[in-house]
Amino acid sequence: MDYQHILKEIEQELASQSFSGEIATYIPELAKVDPNKFGVHLCSLEGNDYFLGDNEEKFSIQSISKVLGLALAYQLEGEKIFERVDVEPSGNPFNSLLQLEYENGIPRNPLINSGALVVCDILISLLEDPRADFLAFIRKISGFSTISFDEKVAESERQSGFRNAALANLMKSFGNIHNDIDEVLDFYFHTCSLSMSCKELANTFLLFANHGKLLHTGERLLTSSKTKRINAIMQTCGFYDEAGEFSFRVGLPGKSGVGGGIAAVHPGEYSIAVWSPRLNPKGNSAKGMAVLELLTTKTGRSIF
Amino acid sequence: MDYQHILKEIEQELASQSFSGEIATYIPELAKVDPNKFGVHLCSLEGNDYFLGDNEEKFSIQSISKVLGLALAYQLEGEKIFERVDVEPSGNPFNSLLQLEYENGIPRNPLINSGALVVCDILISLLEDPRADFLAFIRKISGFSTISFDEKVAESERQSGFRNAALANLMKSFGNIHNDIDEVLDFYFHTCSLSMSCKELANTFLLFANHGKLLHTGERLLTSSKTKRINAIMQTCGFYDEAGEFSFRVGLPGKSGVGGGIAAVHPGEYSIAVWSPRLNPKGNSAKGMAVLELLTTKTGRSIF
Amino acid sequence: MDYQHILKEIEQELASQSFSGEIATYIPELAKVDPNKFGVHLCSLEGNDYFLGDNEEKFSIQSISKVLGLALAYQLEGEKIFERVDVEPSGNPFNSLLQLEYENGIPRNPLINSGALVVCDILISLLEDPRADFLAFIRKISGFSTISFDEKVAESERQSGFRNAALANLMKSFGNIHNDIDEVLDFYFHTCSLSMSCKELANTFLLFANHGKLLHTGERLLTSSKTKRINAIMQTCGFYDEAGEFSFRVGLPGKSGVGGGIAAVHPGEYSIAVWSPRLNPKGNSAKGMAVLELLTTKTGRSIF
Amino acid sequence: MDYQHILKEIEQELASQSFSGEIATYIPELAKVDPNKFGVHLCSLEGNDYFLGDNEEKFSIQSISKVLGLALAYQLEGEKIFERVDVEPSGNPFNSLLQLEYENGIPRNPLINSGALVVCDILISLLEDPRADFLAFIRKISGFSTISFDEKVAESERQSGFRNAALANLMKSFGNIHNDIDEVLDFYFHTCSLSMSCKELANTFLLFANHGKLLHTGERLLTSSKTKRINAIMQTCGFYDEAGEFSFRVGLPGKSGVGGGIAAVHPGEYSIAVWSPRLNPKGNSAKGMAVLELLTTKTGRSIF
Repeated sequence: MDYQHILKEIEQELASQSFSGEIATYIPELAKVDPNKFGVHLCSLEGNDYFLGDNEEKFSIQSISKVLGLALAYQLEGEKIFERVDVEPSGNPFNSLLQLEYENGIPRNPLINSGALVVCDILISLLEDPRADFLAFIRKISGFSTISFDEKVAESERQSGFRNAALANLMKSFGNIHNDIDEVLDFYFHTCSLSMSCKELANTFLLFANHGKLLHTGERLLTSSKTKRINAIMQTCGFYDEAGEFSFRVGLPGKSGVGGGIAAVHPGEYSIAVWSPRLNPKGNSAKGMAVLELLTTKTGRSIF
Repeated sequence: MDYQHILKEIEQELASQSFSGEIATYIPELAKVDPNKFGVHLCSLEGNDYFLGDNEEKFSIQSISKVLGLALAYQLEGEKIFERVDVEPSGNPFNSLLQLEYENGIPRNPLINSGALVVCDILISLLEDPRADFLAFIRKISGFSTISFDEKVAESERQSGFRNAALANLMKSFGNIHNDIDEVLDFYFHTCSLSMSCKELANTFLLFANHGKLLHTGERLLTSSKTKRINAIMQTCGFYDEAGEFSFRVGLPGKSGVGGGIAAVHPGEYSIAVWSPRLNPKGNSAKGMAVLELLTTKTGRSIF
Repeated sequence: MDYQHILKEIEQELASQSFSGEIATYIPELAKVDPNKFGVHLCSLEGNDYFLGDNEEKFSIQSISKVLGLALAYQLEGEKIFERVDVEPSGNPFNSLLQLEYENGIPRNPLINSGALVVCDILISLLEDPRADFLAFIRKISGFSTISFDEKVAESERQSGFRNAALANLMKSFGNIHNDIDEVLDFYFHTCSLSMSCKELANTFLLFANHGKLLHTGERLLTSSKTKRINAIMQTCGFYDEAGEFSFRVGLPGKSGVGGGIAAVHPGEYSIAVWSPRLNPKGNSAKGMAVLELLTTKTGRSIF
Repeated sequence: MDYQHILKEIEQELASQSFSGEIATYIPELAKVDPNKFGVHLCSLEGNDYFLGDNEEKFSIQSISKVLGLALAYQLEGEKIFERVDVEPSGNPFNSLLQLEYENGIPRNPLINSGALVVCDILISLLEDPRADFLAFIRKISGFSTISFDEKVAESERQSGFRNAALANLMKSFGNIHNDIDEVLDFYFHTCSLSMSCKELANTFLLFANHGKLLHTGERLLTSSKTKRINAIMQTCGFYDEAGEFSFRVGLPGKSGVGGGIAAVHPGEYSIAVWSPRLNPKGNSAKGMAVLELLTTKTGRSIF
């Protein structure tokens, strides 16, 4: 399929539209980003790359990293991780603490903060050097050895991360955090601080489009079944309180971050990453959503 | 694809497994059903039928009817209905009343009880004779003129439907029910009481697999976009508290009912209905889930 | 004590203050009341009456009647009623439905709507003619044979009582409402519609100040222990979300109604009823609270 | 009044009763206590002391210290503290986190954990050496210079205090904790670890019975109005989920702790402390409740 042509069309159609959302400002580092940045990068399973705009500029991937943490924990521990975190959508966010209390400290899914904290806790128990090992994993999947944490962002997260600390402590009171709280939070904040470009993200998510194999080497990192489960979790839980809307408008498994990034995959066909920092009221990139909606419309490929 | 062969294989594989769940007993009529009933019916878009066991025996479709109510309301009113009911998954059920209270009487989606009550209220406002018109709509989609309500079941529902009455009254206190409560409940209980066979159900859901057109006449009842949205809603919200699990194991849009039925569609390929009354702890047909999981495994067609 | 002198002083002190709250308008009948009405009536255990302003004008006592329903049910059934309704304060009101769900349909106390509905249900099971018998009970306590329901108010309540219907249905789903929902609601709405003057109310509540005996005849209607419990319940639960504030500022057991009335007792000393329709943000009579605060300050009698 | 005689009677009456509750074991230090310990100490405003059993043996006063923290913060900061903590009862405990979330991090009252954490935070901002200054305050009120923290208990609290850490972090995310979380928690755990005898406790609470003046020196530490408010808060909020029951059975302002202690006051008459480690299902000393109930019955003095 002529993805480059389609991306160009999308670029033109969206050029005339204005996207008026705010950028995330809850941590100072995010507030400094130019709200008009815009990048797209698509990797097809044929091995081709297609892109637009600032596709090589790095940004804070934030919650998109939750998928990568899940992938590593799932690879290492298998189904056992689902004894400590469920795989169901979470409903509206106001009741996250109530939900944890009611369900004895078991988060609804690994793509909300509480669930990602449990995943981080699992990784700390498994890895010798969690930060370095996690980074090595992502560098390997992506093929980019320069991906790294943004220490300033990680520090910023820590200084305003009281709600995450509340979640971690509540789960620890139920026995569902095994390591030291500060260590778990520190690792979690680092995963959120990953700095990546659309190009790097799309290449990373190619693993999920390719059923768990690295495209270029053919090395299998995840079984086909595990990859399917990760995609299913992205489909139902990847967009905060807008998973249903995204399912309808885009119809691809994906994950968004408050930095304005979205990574998505069409299993068997391609992976894509978009970046535009202005967020819609539900916290997802407004223009990013529009790009993906147009893409699935123009390619005529929706899973529904 | 040789669906009949695949169904036979599934039948054999499951014959040796025992499914030990309980049947629904909250209303006397449901408790009378033989728990060992088992039927499967698949309609392909090529116009062929494939089936197993008790595929022509009628059972109470219960919540599966929520999809049909949604389809009719959506056809008649369009996007306006989503001002009164959202399209997001609902999270765990314990907080349904809290959610309604917190979100001013707007249900999370049309496939939970509160949402279906709003859909019924919308239909009452639009239809001259709601019960008769709704029945006519289903008879038309399915091509079976004998489909009808089971008055005994409807009456049973009414006599134990206090929780639904609580939901309806709470929403009315927020102005999100416009008609008389008793009329809304009566209509709702009737929709739940629809008695259909797997054959009838599969033929009915063919509409959603066929992008909104009746297969045999080619008549368009729903736009392609509306059908896509209905399928997306089924995908994210169709399985109570097991939507994520179903997404992973089966990967098809579908809807279950406590009568033990499940209807699902593979857009562009087929519709299928299964019936086995024993329920797993989350309230979905245990054997029905297994049939669908094997079907997507054996056909090698999962959307992820 | 020279209560008349104290009341006069209070009248003068408050004359210069303006009380700017709104009157209750959720039902049309209440919205018609002159917001500047003001009455006070105090009955001492010595048998004297002291009063100010519109003390003989009837108004809708609304939730004050919950104490009277409780008294009658307690008299007839004894401690058994507390198997169906607890005696603890209820916390903030936003979670009343959640609380009922979490505690299996058992309301926190008899002075919130859910609890009063259970009390009404208990009375319907016990009384031959609930409305007439309840009226007879109040006429007897008060000594005023002209006290009656205001049918217009009762009807108004019914037409906007969907939230109460939600509570009743939810409790019925837990088996904690035994009679027909409509009958329970109808009786409940009638109890709320009681029309009484400050004079009548104060004379009625004299029973609770006099340890359960009618002052004039000496007839015992409630044991001393039961009266103590009713007073304790008023103390901790009588002022919606302002019980703590009232405890501090006034320090008397009492009950308020959205009609702007408050009835309170100083056990062993007096009963008092005040009426001023403007409500503070928590739904209690603003001027009524001020009167009672000044009264306990000037008499130097606070239980703390 | 001949309190010694009454206490003797109570001792005899209760000797034949068995109290079968469990002692608190959530921290190892509490689990070591002999469950059969029993002490009572009453201080009258006439300056006399009356006592029974182990009245001079020290135990962990736990939450009773919340009243003392409140008293000190209220003395130093006045009404301003109620901008950061409310004075209303809290309803059932399951929703403490939900309540904080719904009410933007403002706890319901200062006698629940979240409220006491805010009080500790206030004190840290005001005091030069919070632990030492707090201890000095209590030593001064009580007249006992040997009262001190139990470091083992404080350390035990810290090691299992994840739920309190969750509360503190959640409130900090709303800006209602100003100091470092660890410092707040450390101070809080120390206040809970106070080790006092019934004799010391009763002498301490004499301040609240004596309208804010030290009995022996006549020095005023709290205004009469502030003392009244503290007593009112104890009355409505002092007994966890049993405030209503305690109001009815005992009818005195008081505060219990999971160490099995209860301190209570009859304003204008006496203060009393009881200790018996076996707890009833709501977490209050079973025998302690019985002692206080008999005391108010036998003295014929109930506020209701």
